[in-house]
Amino acid sequence: MRTVYVNGAYLPEDEAKVSIFDRGFLMADGVYEVTSVLGGKLVDFAGHAERLKRSLSELDMAAPMDDPALLEVHRELVRLNGIDEGMVYLQITRGAPGDRDFVFPDPEETPATVVLFTQSKPGLAANPGAKQGIKVIGIEDQRWGRRDIKTVQLLYPSMGKMMAKAAGADDAWMIEDGHVTEGTSNNAYIVKGGAIITRHLGTEILHGITRAAVLRFAREAQMVVEERPFTIEEAQQADEAFITSATTFVMPVVEIDGAPVGGGKVGPVATRLREIYIEESRKAAV
Amino acid sequence: MRTVYVNGAYLPEDEAKVSIFDRGFLMADGVYEVTSVLGGKLVDFAGHAERLKRSLSELDMAAPMDDPALLEVHRELVRLNGIDEGMVYLQITRGAPGDRDFVFPDPEETPATVVLFTQSKPGLAANPGAKQGIKVIGIEDQRWGRRDIKTVQLLYPSMGKMMAKAAGADDAWMIEDGHVTEGTSNNAYIVKGGAIITRHLGTEILHGITRAAVLRFAREAQMVVEERPFTIEEAQQADEAFITSATTFVMPVVEIDGAPVGGGKVGPVATRLREIYIEESRKAAV
Repeated sequence: MRTVYVNGAYLPEDEAKVSIFDRGFLMADGVYEVTSVLGGKLVDFAGHAERLKRSLSELDMAAPMDDPALLEVHRELVRLNGIDEGMVYLQITRGAPGDRDFVFPDPEETPATVVLFTQSKPGLAANPGAKQGIKVIGIEDQRWGRRDIKTVQLLYPSMGKMMAKAAGADDAWMIEDGHVTEGTSNNAYIVKGGAIITRHLGTEILHGITRAAVLRFAREAQMVVEERPFTIEEAQQADEAFITSATTFVMPVVEIDGAPVGGGKVGPVATRLREIYIEESRKAAV
Repeated sequence: MRTVYVNGAYLPEDEAKVSIFDRGFLMADGVYEVTSVLGGKLVDFAGHAERLKRSLSELDMAAPMDDPALLEVHRELVRLNGIDEGMVYLQITRGAPGDRDFVFPDPEETPATVVLFTQSKPGLAANPGAKQGIKVIGIEDQRWGRRDIKTVQLLYPSMGKMMAKAAGADDAWMIEDGHVTEGTSNNAYIVKGGAIITRHLGTEILHGITRAAVLRFAREAQMVVEERPFTIEEAQQADEAFITSATTFVMPVVEIDGAPVGGGKVGPVATRLREIYIEESRKAAV
């Protein structure tokens, strides 16, 4: 049984509970981060800690712990649960005031709720799926307007994953005003004539930590990066397509709405970026 | 201390908890209803039970209890907590599978989570605020696309309430494509030349139970009802404005974005509709 962290206590997972009055439960008033673990170390912890602070700040929530304290809990959970490859999930909510109210509680009276748990995923780096690639479908983007804040409002992404499954695919790319925003839990890319194309940052997409790292590595490797919107049709005709996220790293996409991309085979750019990303992440992990 | 209901058990509120793996907490994968209590009886329980079933069905969730069983829990909580005027809050989530996953859990293995609690609000019907009216501001509607499903994704409405508070107002009306959708937790109306104007039903707004009842009473009283979108400017120039919800019934709006509506005084149509609604609701309460 896993040991998880809830508000200062390390507990067996079946004893890990929150009040029914927690605003995370009643109002989706919370944010989260997922940090990968490779070789028992945390990948880009600093990036996740930075984005977490931004999410909290956008929602007028104070950070309940500083980065070193947060890092310590991450590391302790990795140690207690013997995680070699996997991830650490962190969620912070606006806490559990005595009653349900749309008005934010006074933070002096209602401390934030802090929850962390691990997921062990042996084979995360060597994932054979990365040699096959995944299939995606396009769905309408029905999410709220501030996707740059990493909130727990994940119902629609979860529905999107089910729509993909029902269509015999692995994931869904969301479309707004004719252009792809991102995947259900990842950023979306295409490769055309050697250039890597991915949507520009804004409130429409999550500012992926893995996205930032992969684009940095791509530029360092002298690849051309274009940050702009693209359509499903453009993606279907691209040389390659792929997604990035903290837990899939770089994952090739070989089919979009039933149309093969790049002949339906994993391409060299996604493959190379995945190698570079995992190699560099291992080196920099803490 | 209140007695609340969690998955079959009646518990003191400070013992009422859910797993951190509950999808309501991790993914906002849950729906809710709020039913008012007048004279110790439930207002329009059948309407709320019907809408609950629709919300569940739209999210591919089975109803964990039938209507008589749900009514019994509502009544038992009203009795145990001695509620004369107030409300019963009900939330159903897709339950707590063993781990976090965007894919829906098998409902055979993961039962829904069912939570109910009461809020006592003496003076709900005689609320003196209804003689003063409230002030609202207009804000951009940033919510997801399926507002007809009553999900717990209430972060933006909650933020909207805080924006209203910061502006010295009581609530916010949300604006999409230039037209008012609804309030943060209520439907929005204006009165013009004797006609009651409120946005038509669709995925853009919640299908208010109080809205349906108030429009029915209005039509029975030979008032003209127009179901169509309106702008903030049209609302500011209207004869009256008001909101409806299960817990505010009919509440006059006397100021919109700083502009007085109807001379800044509560008007006769809202006043009359409030009287009729409360009178009829008392009669029909169960």
